[in-house]
Amino acid sequence: MKTNISGFPEYLPSEQLAFNTIIHTISGIYQNYGYVPLETAAVERIDTLTSKGIDSKEVYALRRLNAQGDDGDKDIALRFDLTVPMARYVAQNFADLSFPFRRYQCQPVWRGERAQKGRYRQFHQFDLDVVGDGTLPIVADAEVIAAAHDALVAIMPEGTPFTMRVNNRKLLTGLVQGAGYEEGEQTYAAIKVIDDLEKIRDEDARERLTAINPQANVQKLIDQTRTTNLSDLTGLNDLAQQGLNELKEVLTTLDNLTGGTSNIVADLAIARGLDYYTGTVVETKLHTAPELGSICSGGRYDNLAASLSDRNLPGVGLSIGVSRLAAWLMDQPPYNTMPATPASIIVIGAAAPALCQQIRKAGLACELGLGDKSAGQHFMAADKRGIKYGIVADTPEKATIRTFSTRQQAEVEASGVVPYLQTLLG
Amino acid sequence: MKTNISGFPEYLPSEQLAFNTIIHTISGIYQNYGYVPLETAAVERIDTLTSKGIDSKEVYALRRLNAQGDDGDKDIALRFDLTVPMARYVAQNFADLSFPFRRYQCQPVWRGERAQKGRYRQFHQFDLDVVGDGTLPIVADAEVIAAAHDALVAIMPEGTPFTMRVNNRKLLTGLVQGAGYEEGEQTYAAIKVIDDLEKIRDEDARERLTAINPQANVQKLIDQTRTTNLSDLTGLNDLAQQGLNELKEVLTTLDNLTGGTSNIVADLAIARGLDYYTGTVVETKLHTAPELGSICSGGRYDNLAASLSDRNLPGVGLSIGVSRLAAWLMDQPPYNTMPATPASIIVIGAAAPALCQQIRKAGLACELGLGDKSAGQHFMAADKRGIKYGIVADTPEKATIRTFSTRQQAEVEASGVVPYLQTLLG
Repeated sequence: MKTNISGFPEYLPSEQLAFNTIIHTISGIYQNYGYVPLETAAVERIDTLTSKGIDSKEVYALRRLNAQGDDGDKDIALRFDLTVPMARYVAQNFADLSFPFRRYQCQPVWRGERAQKGRYRQFHQFDLDVVGDGTLPIVADAEVIAAAHDALVAIMPEGTPFTMRVNNRKLLTGLVQGAGYEEGEQTYAAIKVIDDLEKIRDEDARERLTAINPQANVQKLIDQTRTTNLSDLTGLNDLAQQGLNELKEVLTTLDNLTGGTSNIVADLAIARGLDYYTGTVVETKLHTAPELGSICSGGRYDNLAASLSDRNLPGVGLSIGVSRLAAWLMDQPPYNTMPATPASIIVIGAAAPALCQQIRKAGLACELGLGDKSAGQHFMAADKRGIKYGIVADTPEKATIRTFSTRQQAEVEASGVVPYLQTLLG
Repeated sequence: MKTNISGFPEYLPSEQLAFNTIIHTISGIYQNYGYVPLETAAVERIDTLTSKGIDSKEVYALRRLNAQGDDGDKDIALRFDLTVPMARYVAQNFADLSFPFRRYQCQPVWRGERAQKGRYRQFHQFDLDVVGDGTLPIVADAEVIAAAHDALVAIMPEGTPFTMRVNNRKLLTGLVQGAGYEEGEQTYAAIKVIDDLEKIRDEDARERLTAINPQANVQKLIDQTRTTNLSDLTGLNDLAQQGLNELKEVLTTLDNLTGGTSNIVADLAIARGLDYYTGTVVETKLHTAPELGSICSGGRYDNLAASLSDRNLPGVGLSIGVSRLAAWLMDQPPYNTMPATPASIIVIGAAAPALCQQIRKAGLACELGLGDKSAGQHFMAADKRGIKYGIVADTPEKATIRTFSTRQQAEVEASGVVPYLQTLLG
């Protein structure tokens, strides 16, 4: 990866082909689940963007260069995520969409962060959401997780272990309040500690939880949020019970939608941010690359577009941090050996243009050799870029086909070239 | 198409699916020609952008919202075309690329124009270029035209007549100077009149050409640039002869690369802009939609990146104005009847999630019916969105499959659902 302007990386050809393969694979899975690919304009109104309480210093506003006075474009800025544009799009196009509305969206987002290693100012997110009109069944929560699960399996090197951890914010909040924490500040503070359980020592967690409310049943709360057997949870308050029922329905539906997988587990400690999600939450880690953090996270939100629409638009969705993930994948097979060209065949010689036309007509990608070089020079350079077969066509009647990997060579009648290549390429 | 912010249109689901089909088709053809898909960052340095002499008022510069003082991002702006970023990318990554370097690029560009009907501030261009290191054979000129030709045939409704008109700037310049116009201003002015020949009356052309140089052989020039038979051109000066030889080579190679087509003709009057192209030029018009202007234009440039690199990087390329073209195509078959979802199957009932999994595993796109609606309600809404088949799966053993178009219904064993659907879908 090369960088022209700090924070705005660009791919070299083989990297771009690897990235496109990843995007194409995820898109295929999401379309198989019936999700529409959607793209929104790069810009939003600044008041739409900043209504979400993000750091406005990270927002890139636009201004026309050398424009005089009020140029009419002074209130627009680049999007910093795909959720705000989706909410605005759904609210705005409500009458033309049908609900539940399923869409996926893979586009760049921009954040004016201080440049530092691993921090991009432009990067791609790959979002998947389903939005209901008024209501949205819990089955939808399972669906987005199943689709992302299938997508991750499809893009990972075979056998890469990863775990999607699923929780329900009603369950977690209910457990916290059942342990004695008051609604509001106390509950938020306790959830924050539970969410940190994985990273901190138990005694530190106990200390922080006790400091929030000395009367709380701290050990019970820690034990409950560590339960892996959901039937151990009994005597719950209404909120926790509702959350548990939802979580169970999500897990059962996930079993059906995925055909059963050990990659998805319940984890009652995860929270995923404090004030956004209201039910199901999910995060995903690669066992062999925990440093990437969560590669796919999301959850259920009660109302997507409260500030943009009078309608109640509940939704559930998740996002794959595909730029970061792709950077890791590019060091793994098969992405680490991607060719630098989509062609697997190069043709040289006086009759090459007409033969290229025949080969392309058959749907095979082939490159026309350009420039005054010998066959050996052409083929060596082509081999280096990942091209597999070289053809010399000096006359329209005959061609010589060389397989670079084996150095084998065959002379073939013109009419036999395409069938011969089809056999070679399987 | 809906517009959130004036000049930044967005697609509805069926339009997005149509647009994606168009992009996917063009990409497939370009990859078959061995071109690498490339994407560059949305931003460039302002001095890189403005070195090309464009109207800087149309450039959207970025500034971080509420950033204090020098935020380090004050010298970057959104790209306004794909040629400048490509030139910069090639110059910058020279050592990591192999030449001739072939790439295609389909990304949005931004121009801060005054809002008016049909003028977008964000739109997609679909560019195709090949760049040489030091030299680039004329065959490359034919290749980009052939690839674009094949792409246009592939995306057009069958039988849509279009013409790609090819010329050579050396030939045109040589003819103009052969008629008596001096190098420099006189030549440019005369070329501009010839380029307008199609739009103006002959007597106006003659008058303008005579005004530029009263001694010039105006009628001979008009006759020569209207010649459709290239062998009629005799007694040419060196520059014109060189251009004619190049043009003939381009046309012969095009015949071989396309297998012969009446969509490509020589037109000795076209110029495509005054100071950019140096050899081959091409423009393309739809017979039934001349109001679109040229839908695909380009040509040869002697040095791509003179201000960015010490190397001589000759190139040839062209660009499809794909946003404008897609807007027209969406009113034509098959794009005017695109479904609003990628799924062709909807499944409802208690056993639906598990059955969906089976169907998707077979590579068929299907939607899980969500929400408390009757089969009739589900299916009517699905039919409207372009879904073709509805399945009721109340138990894991059996399913009922309905074909919306014929209202036929069949009861099928669970294990037989996928084969049954595969037969229906062909």
